[in-house]
Amino acid sequence: MSTIEVGLPDGRTLEVTTGITVLEVAEQIGAGLARAALAGRIAGSLVDLRQPLAESCALEIVTTRDPEGGDVIRHSAEHVMADAVKRLFPDAQVDAGRSDHSEKFQYDFRTANPFSPDDLEAIEAEMKKILKEKSDFSREVVSREEARQIFAELGEQLKVERLADIPDGVEITLFRHGQFVDLCRGPHVRNVKQIGAMKLLEAAGAYLRGDESNEMLQRIYGTAFASKDELKAHLERIEEAKTRDHRVIGKQLGLFFLSAETVGSGLAMWLPKGAVLRRELGTFLEEQLAKRGYQPVITPHIGRVELYETSGHYPYYADSQYPPVSVGDGEEQYLLKPMNCPHHIQIYAHEKRSYRDLPLRLAEFGTCYRYEKSGELNGLTRVRALTVDDAHIFCTPEHVEAEFTSVLEFVQFVLSTFAFEDVRISLSARDPDDDKYAGDPALWDQAEATLARVLDNLGLDYVHEVGEAAFYGPKVDFHVTDVIGRAWQLGTAQLDYVLPERFGLEYTGADGQLHRPVMIHRAPFGSFERFIGILIEHFAGDFPLWLAPVQVAILPITDRHHDYAAKVAGALLAAGLRAFVDDRSEKLNYKIREAELQKIPIMCVVGDQEEEAGTVSPRVRRAGEHRAEALAVDAFVEDLTGRVARREV
Amino acid sequence: MSTIEVGLPDGRTLEVTTGITVLEVAEQIGAGLARAALAGRIAGSLVDLRQPLAESCALEIVTTRDPEGGDVIRHSAEHVMADAVKRLFPDAQVDAGRSDHSEKFQYDFRTANPFSPDDLEAIEAEMKKILKEKSDFSREVVSREEARQIFAELGEQLKVERLADIPDGVEITLFRHGQFVDLCRGPHVRNVKQIGAMKLLEAAGAYLRGDESNEMLQRIYGTAFASKDELKAHLERIEEAKTRDHRVIGKQLGLFFLSAETVGSGLAMWLPKGAVLRRELGTFLEEQLAKRGYQPVITPHIGRVELYETSGHYPYYADSQYPPVSVGDGEEQYLLKPMNCPHHIQIYAHEKRSYRDLPLRLAEFGTCYRYEKSGELNGLTRVRALTVDDAHIFCTPEHVEAEFTSVLEFVQFVLSTFAFEDVRISLSARDPDDDKYAGDPALWDQAEATLARVLDNLGLDYVHEVGEAAFYGPKVDFHVTDVIGRAWQLGTAQLDYVLPERFGLEYTGADGQLHRPVMIHRAPFGSFERFIGILIEHFAGDFPLWLAPVQVAILPITDRHHDYAAKVAGALLAAGLRAFVDDRSEKLNYKIREAELQKIPIMCVVGDQEEEAGTVSPRVRRAGEHRAEALAVDAFVEDLTGRVARREV
Repeated sequence: MSTIEVGLPDGRTLEVTTGITVLEVAEQIGAGLARAALAGRIAGSLVDLRQPLAESCALEIVTTRDPEGGDVIRHSAEHVMADAVKRLFPDAQVDAGRSDHSEKFQYDFRTANPFSPDDLEAIEAEMKKILKEKSDFSREVVSREEARQIFAELGEQLKVERLADIPDGVEITLFRHGQFVDLCRGPHVRNVKQIGAMKLLEAAGAYLRGDESNEMLQRIYGTAFASKDELKAHLERIEEAKTRDHRVIGKQLGLFFLSAETVGSGLAMWLPKGAVLRRELGTFLEEQLAKRGYQPVITPHIGRVELYETSGHYPYYADSQYPPVSVGDGEEQYLLKPMNCPHHIQIYAHEKRSYRDLPLRLAEFGTCYRYEKSGELNGLTRVRALTVDDAHIFCTPEHVEAEFTSVLEFVQFVLSTFAFEDVRISLSARDPDDDKYAGDPALWDQAEATLARVLDNLGLDYVHEVGEAAFYGPKVDFHVTDVIGRAWQLGTAQLDYVLPERFGLEYTGADGQLHRPVMIHRAPFGSFERFIGILIEHFAGDFPLWLAPVQVAILPITDRHHDYAAKVAGALLAAGLRAFVDDRSEKLNYKIREAELQKIPIMCVVGDQEEEAGTVSPRVRRAGEHRAEALAVDAFVEDLTGRVARREV
Repeated sequence: MSTIEVGLPDGRTLEVTTGITVLEVAEQIGAGLARAALAGRIAGSLVDLRQPLAESCALEIVTTRDPEGGDVIRHSAEHVMADAVKRLFPDAQVDAGRSDHSEKFQYDFRTANPFSPDDLEAIEAEMKKILKEKSDFSREVVSREEARQIFAELGEQLKVERLADIPDGVEITLFRHGQFVDLCRGPHVRNVKQIGAMKLLEAAGAYLRGDESNEMLQRIYGTAFASKDELKAHLERIEEAKTRDHRVIGKQLGLFFLSAETVGSGLAMWLPKGAVLRRELGTFLEEQLAKRGYQPVITPHIGRVELYETSGHYPYYADSQYPPVSVGDGEEQYLLKPMNCPHHIQIYAHEKRSYRDLPLRLAEFGTCYRYEKSGELNGLTRVRALTVDDAHIFCTPEHVEAEFTSVLEFVQFVLSTFAFEDVRISLSARDPDDDKYAGDPALWDQAEATLARVLDNLGLDYVHEVGEAAFYGPKVDFHVTDVIGRAWQLGTAQLDYVLPERFGLEYTGADGQLHRPVMIHRAPFGSFERFIGILIEHFAGDFPLWLAPVQVAILPITDRHHDYAAKVAGALLAAGLRAFVDDRSEKLNYKIREAELQKIPIMCVVGDQEEEAGTVSPRVRRAGEHRAEALAVDAFVEDLTGRVARREV
């Protein structure tokens, strides 16, 4: 019997017999680990506990303390749900589950009737019984014919059909717990009792194989965790996320809308209040850009295909682009620009450049187009036309470190302005084994080392992500975490030695010779669309004063206070503040409720008392709605303009 | 012999014999008129003096006092030039002249050698001799075979070939003066002596029939007028226009560029200084929009083809559009938007509207795409992507007059801000005989009457232009005249009852019933691209302070004044002014010359005297470059910020 070597995370190496299972290795390490084991991880991928090891490898045991363990638990709960359904509805046929178990599980069934809420309750109760049976999961490798016979005998016609999807030569595995058997690749928990807590979420119709021309199956969604506390926290996060959903708040506050039917999928339409929000964000960035020595440029949204052939964005990324527009009998092709860089490069190349002109920092809020699959579109966070708060810095190699440092400080300044607290930084490097990365490996090494040094000098924590670099160079990304724990990439800063080469960019150095400049691509927001989507969820629509589309609502108590209300509004408007008088003939309480629903930061109810004294008594939402002291209109205006100018959060 | 009736501009009607010529009618009116006559005008078209009249008509006699008379003079001078060339170079073969004679004439010749400047001088001298011969032009109708024989005998092979271009059934006419005969449709002057003054401009090679694969002919350009004064004025205008050409100044001042080879034809690339200029114009408009109750919106540059099918912009205008982009196996087609209206209409339609919400004024600097033929592209004034300073007002029929009045006042205010003096207003109505106009004729009548009433009430002069309306409604256009006398349409305001109908727009009236709103389309600039092109020529690049990309150049006399220069610049920058210090190690005179070439409005040379006194001595370009009084830096900053805020021209 031959042996293989299994490397462990603590640095030890076990010499074991070929064909030993992951679970057996875990048992060799310790009985406690084996009890908690949910799966193994080899080369970044999860493998089932019962998987025999055929060759030497580095192995990690995934337990309930590992976030990825949750995926295994939910996948196993999926089988338990199918088992429960079959026990309660023996005629139901089981189709297929979910491929991504990061948040939930699901299964589709062919049944006579849709599942009622009572059915779901009964199924959940049945699942709890099954968990108490404490069955182990087992794994079997079978022939195609064996599998066919098993499912045919069980009357699982849909499973027999699914079997045909497995290509020849691929191992066919079955997983069993108790009497229930399923066609599955795993991995699964050791024993059903490791599913600590679960909940069915909803039932819904789903077309067989997602095709509208097929029959409708019945789908049940659920989720599961290692513990009741984790489940509770997750359900709370989902509830909280629902109240913060930028699509819901965007509609409620009249910020934007998307209409696949009329304008097109993934194309945001900004309503007046959303356009104001976007303008304020743009003005904020423009001020910073001017202060930091950037120069504005404006370039068209389209460009000749040759530009992107030179840059390398076409045809290699054609799958995620709108196809080109062909004009003049096909002589010229134009692409909705997938990136702004080639245009900014043309501006650089338009003049002879000397080292004295560098760094040249060209900035533009430039719209780029990505043909994302419709299933991947999501409100503002994944769109097809996105306006990047873009800039490209063209500099000498000697400038790189100082420029990159300024860029990272800029991004940090921007994120801090919005009080993003949970910011994670990644340094994305190339994967030396992947040939998609262009340019000289020595320059890559140098570039990656430069970025690491800049991050270290700034004292920033970061994670190294191999294989996540842009094709033209390494990058530093800033990620923020939203209320349901999803990480969003926002700001990015990328170093690029490749595009200057491809476009043959040059400058005359102090030595009178021609040299090649270096490019830095950077965008603190990433895009206005995504940034605003995340900002809406971050603030739950309760924007700080400077960003609020309407800053002050003036609510006259009766009609005879309209004139005074208009006077107060006039003073605010004249100071550049966004105020309006709600002079509709509605009850005051109704107007207050409306202003609250619209999340207007400041409300001023004006009546006799205010008019006589020439004052206002602002109610500030963020201060908890209580009535503040009365103050003179002038002082009020001054207070607000100061807070806006300081961009107080 | 039958008779016909000829109506004259003074209201008289002459009863004349059928077949009478235009010239004979002129002679009946008066001998003086006949002597000055150059052509006739019937139904808007010029007809030759020798044209027999076959039916009753309204006839106008065009004389040297009529601007269109110039076209006849230049066309006739074209023949005189060909005559002169044939006299001097008997072997030259004559090809074809120019179709548009609004500015110049030209003729192409097949000759052994190109024409030298000496040749041109000789030809011009020969032309003068011909004018002194005082020959009348005569007109003959001939058969195709007669014409062929005449030109074959003359050895004019090119003319024989041109003969084949005339379709069967079209009358073939020859024009003669003296010995010279040409194949031509006319009209021509009565006698060559009516060509008061002419000048040959240049000679150049030109491919036969404009086709690069053909032989090269020799072309001579010239121009001619009724009098020496008119010729002189015209030549001066051309010279002046050259120095004001926005393409030349745009390059010289680094404002923008166009590159057909890299980015694409007609797609403007705005360099930093141009982007600043454009931003200042945008800020100016945004301020006005906010003051006038407009709300900003932002919509994508593309939209589903169905939007434009509903509006009527597609496929009827497909010839002047980029073709649609087809995605998802052709299921969806997207058009680069030819107009912003359908998007703004979607925003209107996104909510239920009540009469209380109206007028709703939605504004956007929205980029539209027109696939203009490459030959029609011209710098910024004719481009393929143009950013319209667009807005759409949705209102009740009762609002129309007040809203349209405000719009016209707005456009006038905008044009006056730039000191455009020669502004012409046109009211474009539909042509009732043309079926391209959509909607109810009664509504058209009402709309046209409304616009006329608004113009009258504002006391504005305007011309009625039948057949120039948009397909959806009548419009008022503002035209400015540039330095070489070309009229450019800038601002436009259009009334529209059709698109609200096509998109089924509604609002709830005070009566609780659903009603259809009216739309007003309006754009004071027209587009940023064209407006800036014209603005550059209007100011010859000498922008008023508030628009100048760089407002102040600080020129230190020696290196030791750099600190003081930086201090002055700092004070200006802090006040939001655009200043820079020219601290290059160049001679002061060189720097002054550079600042002059860059047309920077204010130059401050700073030396010991200024530094000691803490002053500047600004030289203001527009005040004629003389050195102004020294003044304290604070006072200088205050003066400039005031002038910028007032947007002084």
